[in-house]
Amino acid sequence: MKVRDLGEDRLIEQLLPRLSLRKAVATAPGDDCAVVEAQHRRKLLVLKTDCVVERVHFLRGTNAFNVGWKAMMRPLSDFAATSAVPQFALITLMAPKQTEVAWVKELYRGLRRAAKRFEVSIVGGETSSTPGPVAISTSVVGFVERDRAVSRRGGKAGDDLFVTGRLGGGLKQKHLQFIPRIAESRWLTKNFPIHAMMDLSDGLGTDLPRLARTSKVGFKIQVENLPLTRGAKLNDAISEGEDYELLFAVSSRDRSRLQRAWAKKFPKLLLTRIGSLNRKPKTENLKLPGGYVHFQQPS
Amino acid sequence: MKVRDLGEDRLIEQLLPRLSLRKAVATAPGDDCAVVEAQHRRKLLVLKTDCVVERVHFLRGTNAFNVGWKAMMRPLSDFAATSAVPQFALITLMAPKQTEVAWVKELYRGLRRAAKRFEVSIVGGETSSTPGPVAISTSVVGFVERDRAVSRRGGKAGDDLFVTGRLGGGLKQKHLQFIPRIAESRWLTKNFPIHAMMDLSDGLGTDLPRLARTSKVGFKIQVENLPLTRGAKLNDAISEGEDYELLFAVSSRDRSRLQRAWAKKFPKLLLTRIGSLNRKPKTENLKLPGGYVHFQQPS
Repeated sequence: MKVRDLGEDRLIEQLLPRLSLRKAVATAPGDDCAVVEAQHRRKLLVLKTDCVVERVHFLRGTNAFNVGWKAMMRPLSDFAATSAVPQFALITLMAPKQTEVAWVKELYRGLRRAAKRFEVSIVGGETSSTPGPVAISTSVVGFVERDRAVSRRGGKAGDDLFVTGRLGGGLKQKHLQFIPRIAESRWLTKNFPIHAMMDLSDGLGTDLPRLARTSKVGFKIQVENLPLTRGAKLNDAISEGEDYELLFAVSSRDRSRLQRAWAKKFPKLLLTRIGSLNRKPKTENLKLPGGYVHFQQPS
Repeated sequence: MKVRDLGEDRLIEQLLPRLSLRKAVATAPGDDCAVVEAQHRRKLLVLKTDCVVERVHFLRGTNAFNVGWKAMMRPLSDFAATSAVPQFALITLMAPKQTEVAWVKELYRGLRRAAKRFEVSIVGGETSSTPGPVAISTSVVGFVERDRAVSRRGGKAGDDLFVTGRLGGGLKQKHLQFIPRIAESRWLTKNFPIHAMMDLSDGLGTDLPRLARTSKVGFKIQVENLPLTRGAKLNDAISEGEDYELLFAVSSRDRSRLQRAWAKKFPKLLLTRIGSLNRKPKTENLKLPGGYVHFQQPS
């Protein structure tokens, strides 16, 4: 069987159960970040790696600064999902020998600028030649307070589902310039018991079923409530991906307090209640006028 | 200018000064590992990333188990260089969609087996498709006691230079099956003040000048003392690379105690005094009968 036929989720699932997880691990791989016991009793170590590959995550002509920005911000978006504070980053650059040094320098300028935005130190890295496309792998290490670590698990039937910002249109420009919602996520876990959270990188139609499945609940979405990016269609908001917004579940009892406090703290960033979690452990198949099944069934 | 014309060392040097190093960083990038302040006062956090790329670090037909083994053991060899204890690993796999799942599973079996050898937990990872060759990036996080962290710096004029094992012939089979010298390195720093240390991945002729340059000293090698792998030529031992043995500098006052204790603790592993560090801040150009300049000049 080819990797293509299995799909990334299934591949990770098949590889994961056999990974050598020790007691020190607080969450499992497949989550947005790995969270492990740190030396400090009240804090957990948080680890995440991600990569961007030419012709997969960016096109050949893309501005190198933007590629560097994206390569750093993607794993930082997973830190936002975990409500963790990133501290250190390592960069692995795989580039053909004929790559222009000026391009690489511009790439690192993007990486550094993105790291600086969240006070992350780039503390190491490795370069390798490759006969293939440019690829950049970024690993980030940081911490989260034990009582503030959030994962995809923990969503409860009856919880409200919220998303930050607007969905859709990510592939146009946002995927190269987005700002991970770390500040928002840290504020959320400081002030509210957030049951489950993730960042929307593959699109709501793929990511929400993942959250529901991991939390062992179902979900119901009010499609008419989805906050669309200007010019984006409903289908874009569900299927396009690269939104890098937060999706989270919180008790409906906190709804009005959350909405009031959010509007005061982040007046420029939309927070939208898009639906709720329910007992039905099956995901809802959303049939839109076009007839597409947008939400992926659990496999 | 192309990356090819600049070389990896120069590229890293040009990129490094501008990296956002904060106070928390105990050693600089370009060292074998990044060593940063941990929460625990007596321990430092150690971070390392590395990659293996098809057609650069392994050939297309290479046994996938061995590729996985190498992908894990390369960064662990840097932990040996730092005398650090590895704890957690993250894997980024970039593979074409037509890759056989069986190949990927065998790759992970190699990764897991190698990790288990040193009680490392693989706690996360990411997969991506690629239009190019298979590439695996491995990031490892661990710790080192503050008073046992070793780097390439710290070598002093008059120090003895030692290498473990035998050099040369690494490309034949050893580069796919080597065992990083972590146990040996940990024993060394527990029992002796090791001034400087690194692992030999690019060959003594490239790596020793790096150590000398970073320590701001010169070196002198007794070529006739170099411990050659059976069948390997002197030139292989100096230039071939992929030895993954330790090279370290220690006060000559510790010489006889070290040699006695080593022979007792590691009777099966050779420890050879190959030369010494000296004041001359220039590297020695070794002209062998063939006429090659084997030791790289500092740039």
